[in-house]
Amino acid sequence: MHFADRLADALDRTGAPACVGLDPVLEKIPQESLDATAGDGGDDIEALGDFCIGVLHAVRDAGITVVKPQSACFERHGSAGMAQLERVITEAHRLSLLIVLDAKRGDIGVSAEHYAAWAFDNLDVHAITVSPYLGPDTIEPFMREGRGVFALVRTSNPESDAVQSPRLVDGRSVAEMIADTVQELGRHRRGGRGMSDIGAVVGATKATEAAALRERMPDQFFLVPGFGAQGGTVEDVRGMTRPGRSGRSAGDLGVLVNASRSVIYAKPQAGEKWTFAVRAAAEKLIADLRDLT
Amino acid sequence: MHFADRLADALDRTGAPACVGLDPVLEKIPQESLDATAGDGGDDIEALGDFCIGVLHAVRDAGITVVKPQSACFERHGSAGMAQLERVITEAHRLSLLIVLDAKRGDIGVSAEHYAAWAFDNLDVHAITVSPYLGPDTIEPFMREGRGVFALVRTSNPESDAVQSPRLVDGRSVAEMIADTVQELGRHRRGGRGMSDIGAVVGATKATEAAALRERMPDQFFLVPGFGAQGGTVEDVRGMTRPGRSGRSAGDLGVLVNASRSVIYAKPQAGEKWTFAVRAAAEKLIADLRDLT
Repeated sequence: MHFADRLADALDRTGAPACVGLDPVLEKIPQESLDATAGDGGDDIEALGDFCIGVLHAVRDAGITVVKPQSACFERHGSAGMAQLERVITEAHRLSLLIVLDAKRGDIGVSAEHYAAWAFDNLDVHAITVSPYLGPDTIEPFMREGRGVFALVRTSNPESDAVQSPRLVDGRSVAEMIADTVQELGRHRRGGRGMSDIGAVVGATKATEAAALRERMPDQFFLVPGFGAQGGTVEDVRGMTRPGRSGRSAGDLGVLVNASRSVIYAKPQAGEKWTFAVRAAAEKLIADLRDLT
Repeated sequence: MHFADRLADALDRTGAPACVGLDPVLEKIPQESLDATAGDGGDDIEALGDFCIGVLHAVRDAGITVVKPQSACFERHGSAGMAQLERVITEAHRLSLLIVLDAKRGDIGVSAEHYAAWAFDNLDVHAITVSPYLGPDTIEPFMREGRGVFALVRTSNPESDAVQSPRLVDGRSVAEMIADTVQELGRHRRGGRGMSDIGAVVGATKATEAAALRERMPDQFFLVPGFGAQGGTVEDVRGMTRPGRSGRSAGDLGVLVNASRSVIYAKPQAGEKWTFAVRAAAEKLIADLRDLT
């Protein structure tokens, strides 16, 4: 099945274009989860996996259908961390969740093929984020039937302007040039619902530029990080959606809005189980984003 | 010790600015090496590590002091592959080799810190390659005392021009803009021998542009892939070295020239042990590059 169709169908099931990011950091994991791992004889690195698996169940119960593991959080711990990432992904598959691996890979030739093999053959994720600086031929190895790619176009970190905002002689910004490359790569790769399987990462805090990027990438899914904890709002996201059609569903909006910390580290109330707080936060994320449809 | 001083000293010991890349691919490993792994009861993934360790000893015996493992080759195989990378790096440390991890990471905020922790705390490599598209603040987490960073500036793949060559309104190419960013980041980070600990990746086949990049980055080490198998020549590299000083040593040239396939897959002559062929190829690499001093 075409990745964009699969993603749109998943978001229709959720009823909102919501994605939960798995960015596990040991210092932030609830004590209750750490204690459970320790009780099973697990170490600190297994605690990352146990926590994420708890999150997966909680957000799935809330109606979430798409998750985005942040590879860096696991890779930080080397092969032992990578083994936890594999465990988390296996569980996400078991729960029939769509998995977007946030790994921002970008390399040339056979090295790009290696990374694609890692993502799609070894981990078997549905999509991966990639970095575009090395050119379109370094994105192509990730373009496979039934799989998705999200290329970094415009990010929300403080100094992204230094590289992404300068104007070219033809009037485009660097980010707009990358947007055109992404659109070009995806031109003949639209699924049954009209969206391409190569999407773009566009930060929620860059809403003012998002309308221009949307014009250049009408058929791309925008993966929108920075919602919630990083300051992006529903109104910011509204300007990123595809040009309006009446009665459109969550999957037709063309955005996949990610929240990580505001969901996975939701503070439980006194006596409440931590997973209840995560589930409630995921339900709130969905409710907030439902306003977009 | 400042990374650039350490690198320059290592290259002085070799007598040439040579680096050997470890890009192990199962299909290319000599049968003799595969058989040895199988004889020890090892599997295909362990064969990657065994092969690389054989290469490390052979090139060290040839006089090589700097190696560049390509992370993608190991990551392709998930946590088991990552464990082999760890094994290879441990052995490289044991042989007192300087290790530049080719991982081309680039992410924002805490994720960049995770990748830096992976490289410098978990793997304990001396330097890492990073991707600059997300801006200078995403490179800074990798800038640590005693460690090095090589930012991608100009690559040699077929379609790199599409992103790196367009001209900005101020007259610079995108690659030159990145070069200025790298220079700026390294401005106050020069070691005792005058070189910065943040260098640049500049492909050997982009020699015509290299002189302009060298002007913009006078104190940067250029990591130059694409030598040998990919077509780069000694004359190409000559144009990339720092402005000439009489009697300068290998470490003062400001380049680190990498060859991978032409060395690690060197074909043994009939009856010759495969590691002899690798050692001979590394000796030839050093001899070729010695012409630069």
